[in-house]
Amino acid sequence: MITNTINNELFVGIDGGGTKCKAIIVNSANEILGTGIAGPGNPLHGFTQAINSIEQSAQLALNDAGLSETPLSYLVAGVGLAGVNLPSLHKQMMHWKSPFKTMYLTTDLLIACMGAHQGDDGAVIIAGTGSCGFSYVKGQSFMIGGHGFPHGDKGSGAWIGFTACQNVLLSLDKLMPNNTLTECILKYLSVNDAMELVEIIANKPAAFFAQLAGCVFQSAAANDDIAISILKESGAYLSDIARQLLAKKSPRLSFIGGLSSVMTPWLDIDIQGVLSAPLSSPEMGSVLYAKQQQVNYSSQEL
Amino acid sequence: MITNTINNELFVGIDGGGTKCKAIIVNSANEILGTGIAGPGNPLHGFTQAINSIEQSAQLALNDAGLSETPLSYLVAGVGLAGVNLPSLHKQMMHWKSPFKTMYLTTDLLIACMGAHQGDDGAVIIAGTGSCGFSYVKGQSFMIGGHGFPHGDKGSGAWIGFTACQNVLLSLDKLMPNNTLTECILKYLSVNDAMELVEIIANKPAAFFAQLAGCVFQSAAANDDIAISILKESGAYLSDIARQLLAKKSPRLSFIGGLSSVMTPWLDIDIQGVLSAPLSSPEMGSVLYAKQQQVNYSSQEL
Repeated sequence: MITNTINNELFVGIDGGGTKCKAIIVNSANEILGTGIAGPGNPLHGFTQAINSIEQSAQLALNDAGLSETPLSYLVAGVGLAGVNLPSLHKQMMHWKSPFKTMYLTTDLLIACMGAHQGDDGAVIIAGTGSCGFSYVKGQSFMIGGHGFPHGDKGSGAWIGFTACQNVLLSLDKLMPNNTLTECILKYLSVNDAMELVEIIANKPAAFFAQLAGCVFQSAAANDDIAISILKESGAYLSDIARQLLAKKSPRLSFIGGLSSVMTPWLDIDIQGVLSAPLSSPEMGSVLYAKQQQVNYSSQEL
Repeated sequence: MITNTINNELFVGIDGGGTKCKAIIVNSANEILGTGIAGPGNPLHGFTQAINSIEQSAQLALNDAGLSETPLSYLVAGVGLAGVNLPSLHKQMMHWKSPFKTMYLTTDLLIACMGAHQGDDGAVIIAGTGSCGFSYVKGQSFMIGGHGFPHGDKGSGAWIGFTACQNVLLSLDKLMPNNTLTECILKYLSVNDAMELVEIIANKPAAFFAQLAGCVFQSAAANDDIAISILKESGAYLSDIARQLLAKKSPRLSFIGGLSSVMTPWLDIDIQGVLSAPLSSPEMGSVLYAKQQQVNYSSQEL
C-alpha cells in the first residue's frame, strides 16, 4: 500500500508551450520515471485546449512510467505556462479544479530558469520560436525582451525568418544583389516570385517564420552576406540581453531553447565564455518549483 | 434635353482606397464639377462595402455638382481599385452589374500614375499608409515594392510607425539610450511601459502604425538619432525604388501619397532633383483612363 508521506510522493512537472505540452513523472529523489507529450498547453491560445493537454500529458507520462493505475489525484503538480503572468489568465487557471492533489502554477520562464539551474538562482537567455531573457536571483524575478512577434522577440527563430523574408523581397525587386538566402527560401517554400511568396507569408504566425530560420543558418554557413548580417544582429541583441541579466548578479547564465546550439557561435565572444550548460529541463524546473513551494507552504503552516 | 454625344458626356472618376473612396464628376473638357467621399473602397477588404462606397461616393459627387437628378446610369466611370491586379478580385468586380453607363476598371496604381502625369507616360513613388513604385511607359506597366505590411511596404507610414515601436521596445528594455521618440510614442498612445505598449500594438493593422509616423518626423525634427535613422532608411529605400523607375525610361517621376511632402527631404539629393509635381489627382487619373479606353474601344469598332 502506498502511504502518503513526503518520501514516496510522486510529482508531475508540466511545461505547457504554444505547440506542445510536456510532462514528466518524478519521485522524491528527483528521478524521472516517465514522460508524456500532448498538444498545445498555452492558455493564451485556448484555455480548454490547454487544460486538456495538461491532463493528457500527465496521463501519458504516468502510463510511460508503468503507473497507469495511479490516479492523477495522487500527483503533486508543478505547472509552468506561458501567459500566466497576465492577471486574467492566472485567475482563470487558479479557478480550474485540476485533477491533481495539489497544483503549483507559475510562468514558463521561471520553470525554464529553475530547470536550467537545478532550482538555484540564475538566468536564462531563451531563443526558439520566440526570444526573451529571464533571471531569478534572491527571490526576485526579472524579465527582458520578449514582447511578441512581429514587433518584439528579436533574435528569435520567428524574427530571423521574418527578417529573411523582408530581405528576399528586396532581392526579388533587384534592390539587393541576388543571394543564396533568396534561393534557399524560395526553394523551401516552393515559390517562384515575390507575388507567390507574399501570398504564402501574409498573416502567418511566428511559428511559420521560425521554420525559415534553418535557411538563414544554412545560407550563412555558405557565406551569404545577408544571412550573416541577420545572424550577427540576432547575436548582438541576445548578447545585450545577456549583459542585462548578468548585471542582476545572476550566478549562472544558460542559453536554452530550440535555437540555442546553432545561435551560440553568433553571440559575442565574452558572452559565449560565461555560458553554463543547462542542468535540467523546464519540466524538471516545474517539479523543483512545486517542491520549493511545498516547503514554503509547510513552513508557513508551522 | 441632354443628348448623348461624346461632347457633353459626363464622367465619374473613382479612387477606391483602404480607408476612403473618392469620386469626382468631370465633363468632356476635364473640368471638375463636383466631388464626393465615402467609406472604404478596397474590394480586398470587403466586396459589398467597396461597391456600396463606389456608388455612394459617385452619388455624393453628383449632388455636389448640383446634378442630383442625373442618374448614375448616365455616367461613364473610370474606377481604380487596390487589389484588382489579383485575378479573382478583378473577375468579381467585372461581374458586378454597376449602375454606370460603362465602367472601366483598373488598379489604384495606374490611375495614380495617369493622374500625376495627366494621362501621359510617367512614374510615381507612392508613400502613404503603404509604399510602392509604379511606372507606365509605352503601354507597359511596371510595379516595384509594395508587397504589404509588415513584411513589405518599406518606407511607408506603417513601416515607419512599426519600426519606431520596435525601437521604443528596445529603449524601454534599456538596450538603447532613452530618446525623444520613445517619449513621443508613449505619450501619443497614452501608455507608460512596454507591457501597456505591447497590449495596444499587438495585431494592429497598417493604418494603426501609420498614425505613429508623425511622432517619428516630429522626433527627427528635434534631432532624435533613432528617428533620423528610421527616416534615412526610408528615404534610401524610396530613392532606390525611384532609380528602378527611372531605369524604365519614365519621362516624368512624381512622389505622391500622404507622406510625400514630409518625406521628400529624406530622399537622396539626386532623386529630389528629378521629381516633377503631380499634375492631377488619382480620381482624375480614373477619368483619363476611362477616356483613353473609350477611344481604344471606339477605334476597335471601326
